[in-house]
This record gives sequence, structure tokens and C-alpha cells, in this order.
Amino acid sequence: MKSRAAVAFEANKPLEIVEIDVAPPRAGEVLVKITHTGVCHTDSFTLSGEDPEGLFPAILGHEGAGIVVEVGEGVTSVKPGDSVIPLYTAECGECLFCKSGKTNLCVSVRATQGKGVMPDGTSRFSYQGKPIFHYMGCSTFSEYTVVAEVSLAKINPQANPGHVCLLGCGVTTGIGAVHNTAKVQPGDTVAVFGLGGIGLAVIQGARQAKAGRIFAIDTNPEKFELAKVFGATDFLNPKDYDKPIQQVLVEMTGWGIDHTFECIGNVNVMRAALESAHRGWGQSIVIGVAGAGQEISTRPFQLVTGRVWKGSAFGGVKGRSQLPAMVEQAMQGDIQLEPFVTHTMPLEDINTAFDLMHEGKSIRSVIHY
Amino acid sequence: MKSRAAVAFEANKPLEIVEIDVAPPRAGEVLVKITHTGVCHTDSFTLSGEDPEGLFPAILGHEGAGIVVEVGEGVTSVKPGDSVIPLYTAECGECLFCKSGKTNLCVSVRATQGKGVMPDGTSRFSYQGKPIFHYMGCSTFSEYTVVAEVSLAKINPQANPGHVCLLGCGVTTGIGAVHNTAKVQPGDTVAVFGLGGIGLAVIQGARQAKAGRIFAIDTNPEKFELAKVFGATDFLNPKDYDKPIQQVLVEMTGWGIDHTFECIGNVNVMRAALESAHRGWGQSIVIGVAGAGQEISTRPFQLVTGRVWKGSAFGGVKGRSQLPAMVEQAMQGDIQLEPFVTHTMPLEDINTAFDLMHEGKSIRSVIHY
Repeated sequence: MKSRAAVAFEANKPLEIVEIDVAPPRAGEVLVKITHTGVCHTDSFTLSGEDPEGLFPAILGHEGAGIVVEVGEGVTSVKPGDSVIPLYTAECGECLFCKSGKTNLCVSVRATQGKGVMPDGTSRFSYQGKPIFHYMGCSTFSEYTVVAEVSLAKINPQANPGHVCLLGCGVTTGIGAVHNTAKVQPGDTVAVFGLGGIGLAVIQGARQAKAGRIFAIDTNPEKFELAKVFGATDFLNPKDYDKPIQQVLVEMTGWGIDHTFECIGNVNVMRAALESAHRGWGQSIVIGVAGAGQEISTRPFQLVTGRVWKGSAFGGVKGRSQLPAMVEQAMQGDIQLEPFVTHTMPLEDINTAFDLMHEGKSIRSVIHY
Repeated sequence: MKSRAAVAFEANKPLEIVEIDVAPPRAGEVLVKITHTGVCHTDSFTLSGEDPEGLFPAILGHEGAGIVVEVGEGVTSVKPGDSVIPLYTAECGECLFCKSGKTNLCVSVRATQGKGVMPDGTSRFSYQGKPIFHYMGCSTFSEYTVVAEVSLAKINPQANPGHVCLLGCGVTTGIGAVHNTAKVQPGDTVAVFGLGGIGLAVIQGARQAKAGRIFAIDTNPEKFELAKVFGATDFLNPKDYDKPIQQVLVEMTGWGIDHTFECIGNVNVMRAALESAHRGWGQSIVIGVAGAGQEISTRPFQLVTGRVWKGSAFGGVKGRSQLPAMVEQAMQGDIQLEPFVTHTMPLEDINTAFDLMHEGKSIRSVIHY
């Protein structure tokens, strides 16, 4: 079938809106009509060419919501008409990781997903007869996309897809990192480095967890207003200080902060976040994705004196098991999504969404088809 | 009073056996007659001059056992004649850290201990009228030493001091890191990098925890025999492989190892240990002490895909609360100490103990006064 799509033909060039061909879903696959998709920094990161696993031409997008149109052979968990959110972190329920009870990092489709193809090793997308790569198992920048059954969360059909699409990545990542990775407890202190969509979601999660002081840190002070809406209590611009921000935070708090979150993808900030963590038990969670070949570093003394360095992917959330309940929470107002949506626009204007993000003017732009 | 002591007059020189003066214990302090002391890599590290906090002249030694001779004003928890182990990690029971229930890193005497003096800011040691620094709050290389009350664990007087002195540092550090820091569960896989006293104690702890495969890794294959005695199941010499040891271990196990322990103090090995940890949930515990200014590094992707980087000091053990029970375990054979003691010698031969350690010929030399 034909589908409108925003295609990344090559690195560091604007997306092109074209009509592509989408092949029918094969066994274990599902054809989804995307109705809404967020535009995330990770899409921008891959488009920039800095992502070592980035492939071109590709259909980016991984923060969407839509409706099942057709299912391939053997698909039983969803049927046409179901409301779904595509998952870049699948949940097969069968692999070593799914069965461990310790992680959400399912490996069922990991190898092929990383190569931009479906689990059978081929693509469902083509343009003028040439294949186009899938992206993160989702490719929500095409109106019609094909997704593995294990990569689809079935959600309440009454949910607002223009909002809950954000649970496909950023908001779930931030809120989940607070509850699943850090396990923030009432009264704990929290510091959030980077106040984009993920950082703001961390703040929202921290407030849900009844955290005490919540430090919001960004070099763009325009972000502080929304951080305050979500529950941050202290606001710091590292540019306002002539010493490293970790030193500022440790001095402000005595011994550092119980839980720190890096939500940017900057390895220097990852170090600052770790070194801001509380002596004895503080932990720092890396959420941001760093550029190819970049490394984090610190003195091992930081760890020996009790700090813990962790990471979080998709907030530790198992998508098929846990995302439906998060959608319900959003419908009940226990997760606020609307404040993240600073801009909405049709697919044709998607490059504007990237521009707004780069200029720091948007939290999330939501594209509607 | 006079006391025989092995004094480190300057960095990178042999210790000198001299008669020093020891002032009486002040308020909150205890005079202890050391009967036995182990010689640990940390003593050697400080003596080498690489320890940025190293001070000279000093009386090193922090792995001892002895008898209380005299108590200062206000001391209530020990009395003359009690058997004790000096603690380089105090336990006051009153500070933020002791009360947290999350860490053993008491701060009650931390600031002065790091400066080589007693909590009142002065030294009890002098030689020819000039003060000598204390070391790690213990200074067990003097027959008579003065220790803060909060830095003394009272132990069963029937225990063999020539063995349980090793619970003052290395053995407790290794066993404690398994139980308190890593919390190894039955069946978990473990890898130990560096088969000195601490590494061997980790292996012993892992066997207590009913770990599954226990990988013992050292560039000196002579260490494998004792590692096997303590319970290791797999033995690897990184020099036998033409690829990084983390790659070897991941390939051997499929996805890596549940718990890895760095017991050397080499930042490159710390990285290898982290990168050997299991995708999704593996954790790596830094125990070794690195040289001044050295840093650990890795790609943040290692953390985002589920590995956790931690450290451990004194095995997370609260000395006054927990060490007495470990002494009982040693007396009942549940902790084996004897195999660690490869050499014993009088104080006069203490420099030989350092030589044996540097040559890789000893696990622990125990000095008797």
C-alpha cells in the first residue's frame, strides 16, 4: 500500500515528505496506522549522523500512537481497530531477560531492530523500488508502519492519542527511571540535569514519589518555569557559578543528592551528576544517549565512597505489561502529558519540529497525520 | 610510654624499627597493645608515596588485633583486658551515615583520621620529641597505639589474634562486599579480578552465598591454586588471550557475569570488570584503591544497557556492630582465615613482608610483636 512518510534520505539533511510503499505484515507483524507521533531528541541524534548505528535512508520516529489495521499470521494479542503504542523496547515474555524479572531489556527483536529491518531480516518500506530502513522497531514518521507484535502495547481506546503518544518514549523514560531504576522514596532529594521532555518527566515522577527537594538544572533558564509546574523546588543554571555544578550542589546540600538523573546525553554532565550524588548511598542514573565513541569518567574514589552509577532505558518499563496502566494514569490525570505538548503540526511541517527542538523552544512537538 | 614501632619516615624507603613515645589516651580514646598485625597492599600503597593523602613520618598498619591497656575519660564500651580489632572505618552510631541504615561510612572521625591525627587534632606518637602521624585511625605497626573508642570492635577473647587480625581489613572487605554491597544470591555468577587477600576473600564470600560459577582472574597463575581451595570454578590469565578479558568472559557466558569485583586498584581492570558484567542487571564492585588522579572510564551505553557500577569500602561492614559476629564465624570455621596467612614474622622483619607482597609470594604476612 501507499503511505505518506517523512524520510531521512541522508544524515544531516531535512526529512523529505514522500509517498512510500508499505508491504503487508508478515508472520508476527502488525500494520499500524499512526495517528500521532512525538519528535524526540533521539530522532534528531540519529538524523545528525552522530549515531554510530544510524542507517540511511530510514523512516525515523519512535514515539507514536495509532490503530491496528491488519495483522500478520499468528498474531493474537492485537486485532484490527485496537489502539496501540509502538515500543522500541519489545517485550516477548520468553527471553532470558523478560523472564529474569530484573530488566526490561528484551532481546527478542534486538539484533534485527538495530539493523533497521524486521525480525526476518527484511524491510517493509520502499521508495521508488528501493528499500528504506526501519528505525527502533517503530518508524512512526510513516502514516502506515509495520511493527513486530512483541513491540506493541495495546491501550485504552478512549485515550487521547495526541497525548499518550508521548508515553512511547520520553515521558515513560523519565517517570519510569524514577520508579523502576532509582526507586525514589518519600523525602529523598533528586537532581535533574537537562530540562527537556525526559528531564521534566523525571521531575513529574519525583513528585509522584513524594521526593523532598527536587533540583532542576539547565543552562537555559527559560526551562525553569515548566520545571516548577511539574514540581521542581530549586533551580540552577551552571553558567551562574564559577565552580563546577557538582561542587555547588554538594555545598548546598552538605553531602550531595540522593538521586541524580542525566537527561541530556552529555558525558561531562554525566560525570557532574555522579559526583553530585550523596556520599554513602547516592546514585546517578544515566538516561541521555551520548555520541559515538564518547566515554564517561570519574575517580573510582567516588564509587568506593558509596555512589552508584546506573543507566536506564525506557525507564525500566516493560512496555506491553506496564504501559497500558500508565495510559490509564494519564487518563485519570495522575500523569500529566498536556504540558509537554508545546507545539502540534501536520506531517508536512515536521522539519519545523526539529528546528524548534534545536532552538530550545519546544518541549515536545506532536505531529498529526 | 615507650613502644617498639616500625616507622615510615619517608616515602618509598623501608620502615625503620625504633622506640617511640606514646602519650596516654585522652577523652574518648583507648590505648591498645597490638599483638598481631597483617601487612596490606594499602600500607604499601601509602608507603610508595602514590597515595595523595599519605603523610610522613607515620606509623602505618591497619589490620591488627590487640588488647585494651588503658581507656581515656568517658570511654564505656571497652575496658582494660578486652580483646579488640582497630577499625579504619569507625562506627559512632550517631552521625547521619551511621543512622541512615544505608552505609558503613561513618564520618565521626573522618576529617582528623585523614589528616593523620586523633579527633582532637593532635598525635599521640612522637620520636625524639617530634610528632609522628597516625594512619587510618589504627597505626598497628606500633606495639602500643592509641585509637578512638568509636574505632574499636570488641571481640571474643578466645579468638586467635594471629588470624582474626585479618578481619581488620582484607578478609572483611572481600566477604563483606559479596554480602553487603553486591548481595550475591544462590546460583549467581561471580568474577574476581585479582587474587590477593581481598580477591580470595571475595571468592570465599561467594561460596558462602552459594554462587554458581566463580571466575578467578589473575596474571599470576600461581594464585589459582589457593583460589580453587576457596571455591573458584574457572581460572583465567588475561595474558593467555589475544583479546580483552571482558570480551573473553562475555563470550564464555553469553551475556556476561552477574557480579564482578575489582580487587587490585587498577583503573583498566575496573573497566574490564564493569564491561564483563551481565547485560540487563550485572553489577561491578570496585574494591581496589587506585593511584592519585587516576580515573575510570567506559562508554555510557554499558550503563544504559543495565550494568551498575558500585564501590565498596571495608565490605560495607559496620565494624562495631558486625565484626564481633564475623570473629565468631571465624572461630566456628565458617570463615577460613588460616589459608590467608602464608607467612608470619616478628616486627623486626616487617620489611620482608613488604618484599614478599611485591614479589607476589605472599597472600598475607602476619607480624607478631
